[in-house]
Amino acid sequence: MTLLSPDRLFPSDLVTRSIAKRLHSSISCLPILSPHGHSNPRWFSRNEPFSDPAQLFVVPDHYVFRMLYSQGVPLERLGIGSASVEDPRIVWRIFAQHYHLFRGTPTRLWLDFAFHELFGLAARLTAANADEYFDTIVEKLRTPAFRPRALFERFQLEVLATTDSPLDSLADHDAIRAASFTGFKARIIPTFRPDPVVDPDFPSFVENLGRLGQLARMDTSTWQGYLFALRQRRLDFKAAGCTATDHGHPTAATADLEPDAADRLFQKIVSGQSDPEERELFRAQMLTEMAAMSLDDGLVMQIHPGSLRNHNAQLFARFGRDMGADIPVSTNYVQTLRPLLSRFGNEPRLTIILFTLDESAYSRELAPLAGHYPCLRLGPAWWFHDSPEGIMRFREYTTETAGFYNTVGFNDDTRAFLSIPGRHDVARRVDCSFLARLVAEHRLDEDEAHEIATDLAYGLARKAYRL
Amino acid sequence: MTLLSPDRLFPSDLVTRSIAKRLHSSISCLPILSPHGHSNPRWFSRNEPFSDPAQLFVVPDHYVFRMLYSQGVPLERLGIGSASVEDPRIVWRIFAQHYHLFRGTPTRLWLDFAFHELFGLAARLTAANADEYFDTIVEKLRTPAFRPRALFERFQLEVLATTDSPLDSLADHDAIRAASFTGFKARIIPTFRPDPVVDPDFPSFVENLGRLGQLARMDTSTWQGYLFALRQRRLDFKAAGCTATDHGHPTAATADLEPDAADRLFQKIVSGQSDPEERELFRAQMLTEMAAMSLDDGLVMQIHPGSLRNHNAQLFARFGRDMGADIPVSTNYVQTLRPLLSRFGNEPRLTIILFTLDESAYSRELAPLAGHYPCLRLGPAWWFHDSPEGIMRFREYTTETAGFYNTVGFNDDTRAFLSIPGRHDVARRVDCSFLARLVAEHRLDEDEAHEIATDLAYGLARKAYRL
Amino acid sequence: MTLLSPDRLFPSDLVTRSIAKRLHSSISCLPILSPHGHSNPRWFSRNEPFSDPAQLFVVPDHYVFRMLYSQGVPLERLGIGSASVEDPRIVWRIFAQHYHLFRGTPTRLWLDFAFHELFGLAARLTAANADEYFDTIVEKLRTPAFRPRALFERFQLEVLATTDSPLDSLADHDAIRAASFTGFKARIIPTFRPDPVVDPDFPSFVENLGRLGQLARMDTSTWQGYLFALRQRRLDFKAAGCTATDHGHPTAATADLEPDAADRLFQKIVSGQSDPEERELFRAQMLTEMAAMSLDDGLVMQIHPGSLRNHNAQLFARFGRDMGADIPVSTNYVQTLRPLLSRFGNEPRLTIILFTLDESAYSRELAPLAGHYPCLRLGPAWWFHDSPEGIMRFREYTTETAGFYNTVGFNDDTRAFLSIPGRHDVARRVDCSFLARLVAEHRLDEDEAHEIATDLAYGLARKAYRL
Repeated sequence: MTLLSPDRLFPSDLVTRSIAKRLHSSISCLPILSPHGHSNPRWFSRNEPFSDPAQLFVVPDHYVFRMLYSQGVPLERLGIGSASVEDPRIVWRIFAQHYHLFRGTPTRLWLDFAFHELFGLAARLTAANADEYFDTIVEKLRTPAFRPRALFERFQLEVLATTDSPLDSLADHDAIRAASFTGFKARIIPTFRPDPVVDPDFPSFVENLGRLGQLARMDTSTWQGYLFALRQRRLDFKAAGCTATDHGHPTAATADLEPDAADRLFQKIVSGQSDPEERELFRAQMLTEMAAMSLDDGLVMQIHPGSLRNHNAQLFARFGRDMGADIPVSTNYVQTLRPLLSRFGNEPRLTIILFTLDESAYSRELAPLAGHYPCLRLGPAWWFHDSPEGIMRFREYTTETAGFYNTVGFNDDTRAFLSIPGRHDVARRVDCSFLARLVAEHRLDEDEAHEIATDLAYGLARKAYRL
Repeated sequence: MTLLSPDRLFPSDLVTRSIAKRLHSSISCLPILSPHGHSNPRWFSRNEPFSDPAQLFVVPDHYVFRMLYSQGVPLERLGIGSASVEDPRIVWRIFAQHYHLFRGTPTRLWLDFAFHELFGLAARLTAANADEYFDTIVEKLRTPAFRPRALFERFQLEVLATTDSPLDSLADHDAIRAASFTGFKARIIPTFRPDPVVDPDFPSFVENLGRLGQLARMDTSTWQGYLFALRQRRLDFKAAGCTATDHGHPTAATADLEPDAADRLFQKIVSGQSDPEERELFRAQMLTEMAAMSLDDGLVMQIHPGSLRNHNAQLFARFGRDMGADIPVSTNYVQTLRPLLSRFGNEPRLTIILFTLDESAYSRELAPLAGHYPCLRLGPAWWFHDSPEGIMRFREYTTETAGFYNTVGFNDDTRAFLSIPGRHDVARRVDCSFLARLVAEHRLDEDEAHEIATDLAYGLARKAYRL
Repeated sequence: MTLLSPDRLFPSDLVTRSIAKRLHSSISCLPILSPHGHSNPRWFSRNEPFSDPAQLFVVPDHYVFRMLYSQGVPLERLGIGSASVEDPRIVWRIFAQHYHLFRGTPTRLWLDFAFHELFGLAARLTAANADEYFDTIVEKLRTPAFRPRALFERFQLEVLATTDSPLDSLADHDAIRAASFTGFKARIIPTFRPDPVVDPDFPSFVENLGRLGQLARMDTSTWQGYLFALRQRRLDFKAAGCTATDHGHPTAATADLEPDAADRLFQKIVSGQSDPEERELFRAQMLTEMAAMSLDDGLVMQIHPGSLRNHNAQLFARFGRDMGADIPVSTNYVQTLRPLLSRFGNEPRLTIILFTLDESAYSRELAPLAGHYPCLRLGPAWWFHDSPEGIMRFREYTTETAGFYNTVGFNDDTRAFLSIPGRHDVARRVDCSFLARLVAEHRLDEDEAHEIATDLAYGLARKAYRL
């Protein structure tokens, strides 16, 4: 018995499976492009060893601890919310006792991939072998081959994009580039995520504008100064290798105000006297401003709407953000994006990548929009939908209207560095399975499917993200 | 030819089918838990024979007569709306003539199961054999083996929950328990469904409060007296074996008012001067009050929102409720449940089971909520979605985010007692088919699938409903 | 290698495929009923040859050019927006260069069907063979066998419905009927599409009412005169063979105003002083008025809501309507249709066929409504969803609640005459595949599936559209 069958995720039907295997074998060795994620650049600038399995797999991964929490495991028992994990072995044992909760989830697939491929573990994790797992992983993490830079190379990561605030100095990225002189020639690039300085509901928004002004050497108390500062920071990011921006708004609302009206709105916002509608309008206007800037500096724009953040008030009060309590909401793209698209929608030089947590929008709104507007592309199945069923539904619901070439390949979007190869493995296998079905049903020729499989695994991301 | 293939509902692919068969063979003999349904306790307290096939299969089952009605068969011709069916054989013949309408529907599967398994009928029902069917069924219904209590035992029903008003005396349940001295040791338990006394739009709402006060010996004209009366009736139900409440509200709205505001709202409601928004707010507040009571008395809470009742005004005027004209509407769970969850969401002692008629909420809202909040579980595919495709979609859309262990097994939710084994048979076979695909695609090991199959058929319902 | 496998679109599993093939072989020769589409009656009244491949396949088909446009091909390069295509061969080469964009889309299937079945082309279209394709098609189009009337007969079209304005004189339809004396005995019938005279937001609405009055010899400046004129034009259409009306409203809103209120609303509308809510209310009222007229004249009513027309303002300003920029929006049917259904919903003499671009409404709203109301039927998967995955989802999401017999067969709904056989071929094969799965899973007997396959391909459309 083994954790990883070579046929995993391929359809059971023998004809289809054999096509899927042929397709997959031709792409399984392609390097990984990771154009959107949440790896910490410090891992690579410092290259310190990861500490232990609990800190590596449980504590930082809200996919993991939200499931344990949903079944009654207090977060404190997992060492979450305290400065450090008191006894990581205890945390690991709790996790192992509850490993059955992950049956049928992608987390299980990603974890098994890492356990097997990276750590050579062949038996399923259980309460009985929790200590054996723990010891094996700890031992390996102490070796040079498991340092972040070594893993980066082992993963065949051709590009890794992190997600960074305009208030970040990018010092870690500078240090990584400097390390190329020592032989670590990795392309690790920042992504410009301006939420802290464009979303008035972001904690410390007004203070953030001051800090933005310092970094850009601009007076951000005026609308024009603020816009110049954003333009400047975008150029700073671009100089550090950045090719894309990312916008995590609650909705996909966009606006296209007259300059005077925008100026007045900005003053109202920074005065702290704004109401929720004005703050929503400001976010909406800023998406259009960002699109205007993208036309000038060429950064690709990613819009990730539709998550109601920090739904669990008690948990938020005690543990803060990113505790697994962000919940998707029904999301409209058609009326909301119209102001931005009315201004820039026909610009082929602009690329806007749309994501959704509301799968009902795939066939109803997103594929029809992306199958028409030259600037629009569809981001891959995202977050809760970054899974075998979710990725398959993405293809089934979008391909017939938007085709393959209005999509952009896969994003792993993860904070769990060790899950990156496993996530791409799942996506590639599911895409090959979808293509294999089209071939088996004579809806596509196999030579075409081979070309598409390569594009989905590599070519489309390279092109869309301008890598 | 036979009505029931032993391989029914299993995927055609031979590898997957053989796994599904192995899984199913290990659970097909498990007893049935029916923790949510609409059987009439009088059937078991009186144990009188069922009268005839029309009264048994057509007249009481809105799944059946709504389809006939949609194709132009007047309800009067089916004996609906009159005190008794004049000639049940005529009704049966009309039904048989239209039996082709049920092709592809779960009703057909449930009916064929009952025809074959209970009555030994082997040929498909047609206009030609309608009389033969009628005579065979009538003859069997006269025998002791077809009395309600005998069927209960034949069905291997370990627990059967009925659905009952707080205004019900529970006399039938008392009589059933008393019958245990005569050898009928069935666990038939009530469910506390307070809609008649918490929904101001319920017919005779104010009168109902008076009756509630009499039963609980409380003055229900005050907010505190009303709450005490509800608590008392819950305890009465609990004494009769009840383990759960059920709430059939139009939306999932919840509220958490200050006590004074709740008191004032109650006075407005009972004054009869309230507007629709106030009545909606009252229902919302009552869900939170019910959750508070559940924390004290341990009753599991079921929330079934999203049905617009009695859509067909003409039909309602002539025939009343439950005539197949309840239509699902788009349903939000994220903002609506937040007041209740902000107060009680992190209580592991509380269990709230959520149902939906809006399948777009499965992956967008329900699985993310249930995969986080300790108190939340997902009820099975419900009503229109209690079907092979519907049950499969439930698993495909919820498992990857919520896992199996945040679900609660199957509910048959039926008024058609004879359909209970057939409904559980469909659910078990579809669940085994889903699991078999995961095994065939190496997403799960077969030993795990066996464990899960048992949990889905039996263990999860037992645990979630505290049976 | 061939463009068209005889097994195309059938599931790969051998058992299921063999059933699907048997089902399909029994219906593949049935004539085509095309009860809803956008063929130009002039093609058949004049019977002039089609000019060239670009004018035939690219310029008039927004499915085709929207995809090219989404990938940066300017519409001008395709000859769109100018009076004539300057060099159709250049347009064709651009199309061929981009043919890979259609991989995985139904457009590819329809085009390959036409290329292979009509023009005998056996190699996939590429940039390399673009000229060979062009020359072959041009040559054939010059022959008598490729004139519109000859193709009509070759396609085995038993009925072809066009879509026509009440302002159309129906002269082409008259000419077609007159041609029967010369041997072209085709049933080509108009459909009454009153949007230009019932939608106040339609261009030139008030002028249109004047023209309507002229055609009907009525004074349309009064509410009663306007209604009489509509009734008269419906009768004129009926005399020309029309059996159905079609209503393309932005939403499914209906209203049932008192006659006085309707009269006042009409006066407000024609005064040009109305606001958007009043115009929406007028459209809503007109659906109910049309239902009343249908009860009298027997025309079947089709409602196609949920498309936001001309989303791309710049494109609309330059190129006008129908440029591939109509985008679906979330659509409600439950509350919106209630006023109309409260008045006429129980009339078995009335047939209303509902369509959707919002697939989330299939199982939530449309199947429950159609599975209850005698007047309602479900139109097939429409527009963006008229595709293998879309048609399969339509069956999977509607059959279990509404059955097969509350659906109406297939609509090709196309402006691309040559795609009609290919579109029906796709629909028939997908329906057979769905049925084959039900048979393989023992949910239906094969003799029943044969009967249903015939109904879906032919019988249901004939009955629903009263052909």
